[in-house]
Amino acid sequence: MRTVDDLQALLDEACRWARESARTGKVADYIPELAKADPALVGIAVHTMDGRVAASGDSETPFTLQSVSKVFALAALMKVAGMKALAGMPCEPSGDAFHSIVRLEEERGHPRNPLINAGAILVSSRLPGISPEEKAANVSGLLSDILGADVQVDDRVYRSESATGYRNRALANYMRHFGLLDDPRAACDAYFRQCALRMDAPALARVGLFLANGGTDPLSQHAVLPPACARAVLALMTTCGLYDQVGEFALSVGLPAKSAVSGAILAVVPGRMSIATYGPALGLKGNSVAGMAMLEFMAGELGLSLFG
Amino acid sequence: MRTVDDLQALLDEACRWARESARTGKVADYIPELAKADPALVGIAVHTMDGRVAASGDSETPFTLQSVSKVFALAALMKVAGMKALAGMPCEPSGDAFHSIVRLEEERGHPRNPLINAGAILVSSRLPGISPEEKAANVSGLLSDILGADVQVDDRVYRSESATGYRNRALANYMRHFGLLDDPRAACDAYFRQCALRMDAPALARVGLFLANGGTDPLSQHAVLPPACARAVLALMTTCGLYDQVGEFALSVGLPAKSAVSGAILAVVPGRMSIATYGPALGLKGNSVAGMAMLEFMAGELGLSLFG
Amino acid sequence: MRTVDDLQALLDEACRWARESARTGKVADYIPELAKADPALVGIAVHTMDGRVAASGDSETPFTLQSVSKVFALAALMKVAGMKALAGMPCEPSGDAFHSIVRLEEERGHPRNPLINAGAILVSSRLPGISPEEKAANVSGLLSDILGADVQVDDRVYRSESATGYRNRALANYMRHFGLLDDPRAACDAYFRQCALRMDAPALARVGLFLANGGTDPLSQHAVLPPACARAVLALMTTCGLYDQVGEFALSVGLPAKSAVSGAILAVVPGRMSIATYGPALGLKGNSVAGMAMLEFMAGELGLSLFG
Amino acid sequence: MRTVDDLQALLDEACRWARESARTGKVADYIPELAKADPALVGIAVHTMDGRVAASGDSETPFTLQSVSKVFALAALMKVAGMKALAGMPCEPSGDAFHSIVRLEEERGHPRNPLINAGAILVSSRLPGISPEEKAANVSGLLSDILGADVQVDDRVYRSESATGYRNRALANYMRHFGLLDDPRAACDAYFRQCALRMDAPALARVGLFLANGGTDPLSQHAVLPPACARAVLALMTTCGLYDQVGEFALSVGLPAKSAVSGAILAVVPGRMSIATYGPALGLKGNSVAGMAMLEFMAGELGLSLFG
Repeated sequence: MRTVDDLQALLDEACRWARESARTGKVADYIPELAKADPALVGIAVHTMDGRVAASGDSETPFTLQSVSKVFALAALMKVAGMKALAGMPCEPSGDAFHSIVRLEEERGHPRNPLINAGAILVSSRLPGISPEEKAANVSGLLSDILGADVQVDDRVYRSESATGYRNRALANYMRHFGLLDDPRAACDAYFRQCALRMDAPALARVGLFLANGGTDPLSQHAVLPPACARAVLALMTTCGLYDQVGEFALSVGLPAKSAVSGAILAVVPGRMSIATYGPALGLKGNSVAGMAMLEFMAGELGLSLFG
Repeated sequence: MRTVDDLQALLDEACRWARESARTGKVADYIPELAKADPALVGIAVHTMDGRVAASGDSETPFTLQSVSKVFALAALMKVAGMKALAGMPCEPSGDAFHSIVRLEEERGHPRNPLINAGAILVSSRLPGISPEEKAANVSGLLSDILGADVQVDDRVYRSESATGYRNRALANYMRHFGLLDDPRAACDAYFRQCALRMDAPALARVGLFLANGGTDPLSQHAVLPPACARAVLALMTTCGLYDQVGEFALSVGLPAKSAVSGAILAVVPGRMSIATYGPALGLKGNSVAGMAMLEFMAGELGLSLFG
Repeated sequence: MRTVDDLQALLDEACRWARESARTGKVADYIPELAKADPALVGIAVHTMDGRVAASGDSETPFTLQSVSKVFALAALMKVAGMKALAGMPCEPSGDAFHSIVRLEEERGHPRNPLINAGAILVSSRLPGISPEEKAANVSGLLSDILGADVQVDDRVYRSESATGYRNRALANYMRHFGLLDDPRAACDAYFRQCALRMDAPALARVGLFLANGGTDPLSQHAVLPPACARAVLALMTTCGLYDQVGEFALSVGLPAKSAVSGAILAVVPGRMSIATYGPALGLKGNSVAGMAMLEFMAGELGLSLFG
Repeated sequence: MRTVDDLQALLDEACRWARESARTGKVADYIPELAKADPALVGIAVHTMDGRVAASGDSETPFTLQSVSKVFALAALMKVAGMKALAGMPCEPSGDAFHSIVRLEEERGHPRNPLINAGAILVSSRLPGISPEEKAANVSGLLSDILGADVQVDDRVYRSESATGYRNRALANYMRHFGLLDDPRAACDAYFRQCALRMDAPALARVGLFLANGGTDPLSQHAVLPPACARAVLALMTTCGLYDQVGEFALSVGLPAKSAVSGAILAVVPGRMSIATYGPALGLKGNSVAGMAMLEFMAGELGLSLFG
């Protein structure tokens, strides 16, 4: 087993190893702006609890958070609502695709968990604020506070998503029918905004660090979330964070993580570190091929799996 | 946070605390023999890696393993087949009830994972041996070897299950149609036998200990499974071990575990201990009410959650 | 077997017979305006091919067409598009509830048939005209032409449906995602308008008469539809016209028919007559209890079933 | 419109026309014995109420009834049980494939209708007799009585189906779980036997004639079924007789019919005639391509559609 002392060498190796596998993936094309990403990009960054930082590959290429934002929107809501943020959601894996509407019909409009699209839209609708802009500002504010720098909405991605997000609007209208939210249009708009928040891998690893430390950012000692909420977020990431590949990821990596169609993955090692990977070429289940490969490599080399 | 030094006191407290909640559950009635269990029973046992043992409540009442046997049947198959034991199964949570046949149709006979009924029947069918008795003997043998004592089939439960197990036979015939197994009748018979293996909570905690130690029993130093397989079993328990309550269990307890309709739950704390609970009164999702309560209590008091 | 010579007596008897059964039903409550209807209302009207007219019960109470409008919207589209009106729809019964979105996901946005909500919204979106008002005017125009009198939108019902129609908007957004229509908002608005068209039972029986005569109104000799289209409409009504009670209706009545949550049913006897019933008290499957009872009575007394 | 006076010429023309389309289909291969059929075969036979008989093409090639037997098994059960034969079945189209098990789970073991596999197995299980042979003898007896000649089980097809019918056994075991039948093995065996009953197209047209005449065979004046039961059978054929192509068949042909994977179709024209087609090349939905083409031709030429 290797240690974090040779972290930079490890990340370089992870990147080299993953470049090959990136070729087997395909960039997401259902949002036009995302389709423009270069499938060959591969980057990784790590922040450890004791302040080590390292990055490798195309780690300075910014990306939009997309579904990774679901984690931070949930955290932003938990800051004000605690565990009530999860009200009306059984918090179980769905076994379905992330955008599926089938369970929503079976379960009378209640999303399975806050990390599938329906649940994330519901979370966004519950964020403090009147307008979609104000709601989304909760998420960017949480991130900016940790980073000490403004996190911005990528306007072209936001507009691209807004122009094509009919499937999400279907989910929102469906939940509206069952009275779970008030304004489907505004809920989707807030959700599209948070999805379009843009940063690079080192920043993503940095903002995820509080989740590795029971909710308190270990560098600033700023308490972002109570420990029970931070634990809940990691539990949800472990059982619902990788779309319909959550079981495979638990087997091959064994960490709480959240992936996004932009090619980002945030993985958290409780008590040790936060890892962000980027690689826009996606596999059949919608997860970054290079990201999964790098995380499997890292988990193997450093013995990070929660399962021993 | 408390420590294992006051383990006995902790287990006594857990039992007292859970007796109340047991009243809200109901004994499983779909297998006539199981329906005879006393719903008020509550027991717990712990084995730590360093050899501490404690038990409390009705811990000497034997029960049949039922779905907990799926873990040991998988281990028995992995002993001879390694990770190929999982061939043909995507190892994803299903989002459905444990006996559901719906996904099997969608996915052309392939079970979602080895811990739902269809997957477990498939695992049993792959165990070495010609007859169902021989196949089931792989499971009882693995358990007997660790315990140093014979683990027996409860014949009345086996016959009761065999007389009523038509839903499982439907699953087996369905998989047979798609060529996943050869003999649906024999596969079910082997499965019914392993489900009827009987022991008490201290024995269950004892036999689960190798999973907390990377596959090697820490007391005898006997290598039951290679580390990668042990890790895989824990990953599967975490994402698929609690029926349709796996997400809720991850939130409230945060440990790999497998539950059974007999009221047993086996929970594993990697690197630390193995916990077995018993309480035949089940909640709406088919898991032991008292068992879930005791495990939540233990995880909280000892800080056992994988999620910090 | 009785004959149409005692038509009035027959209708009076049908009404008397149905009043009792109306008590077992419940007025639709998902659209607030519809919930105000008096559940005791029972009316029936018949127009025969040779010009006989009779009505009984509360036949002068106007109602909104709701789902019965789907038949006339389809006819209006067939007038301009012929059988291409059905493009992209397999025209099979769904086996699901009328508002179900599940199949839409399985079948990549393609509605099963033009008489379930999704299909009807798609039909409305294809009607000639730019604005929703213009599109809906195709339907009211077709009806007004036959009646020789203006058919109006019930504005309160239209606004009530528009204020609550989120489930239909979910369907429309979902179809938009798959590119089946352009503007989900406008499609729903056109659909809500046609659903709110208001008339009474004698008028409904009158406007349905062209369907009994191969597409040509037998009284004015005005050709509304080519024979093949009229036949298609009746085939669709027979296999898809009564929600999830289409099989039971085929058994008990044996006629092409279309029901509505407002309590209206239009039944067509090819070559003989058109029957309209009204009774807002609905059964569990969403069809008028009194209407079904009256149609069963009529079919039995006059030997109307297509099945001998 | 042509008349039955040139029936032979019409059938010859239908056959010629259909031979071409047969090339686009594929012989069923899930039962090995059926896979041996020659896909180029095309035959048709008609029996009219007034005793006209005609046949054309490969009308002397025998075939097994397969799913067409469901109609006669239902008739045989109705002879002794009347409309109670349908108990526990809502008699609605399923919208699913004929062998689907999904609805059975949703609807707690109750088959949608007696013409899908699950429903037909349930009907067979209810036939008088102890052994599967006795149960199946009800069906062959009904057919033999009308034909005045023994109808035999094709033993090779029966054994082939019995050796591979695991999907049907899954259905039977599933219904057994919910208590709808007693002995899944025997029910399937009776069903496999009736499916393997063998005859040619003229015989099939002959045995279907009583359904065109309200349950009474018009040639022998033998009352096979009461009129209400005969009507029910035709209603079921119309809404559930063509698998997931029932709507398309209603549009293109407009007659009660039942198809089989052996390539047979029986169509009934109430008050006029019975038509049997044979053509083992099947389309994507499992219906005979040539049979559908011939029936569309016949319905068009003779104006047979129920829908005008």
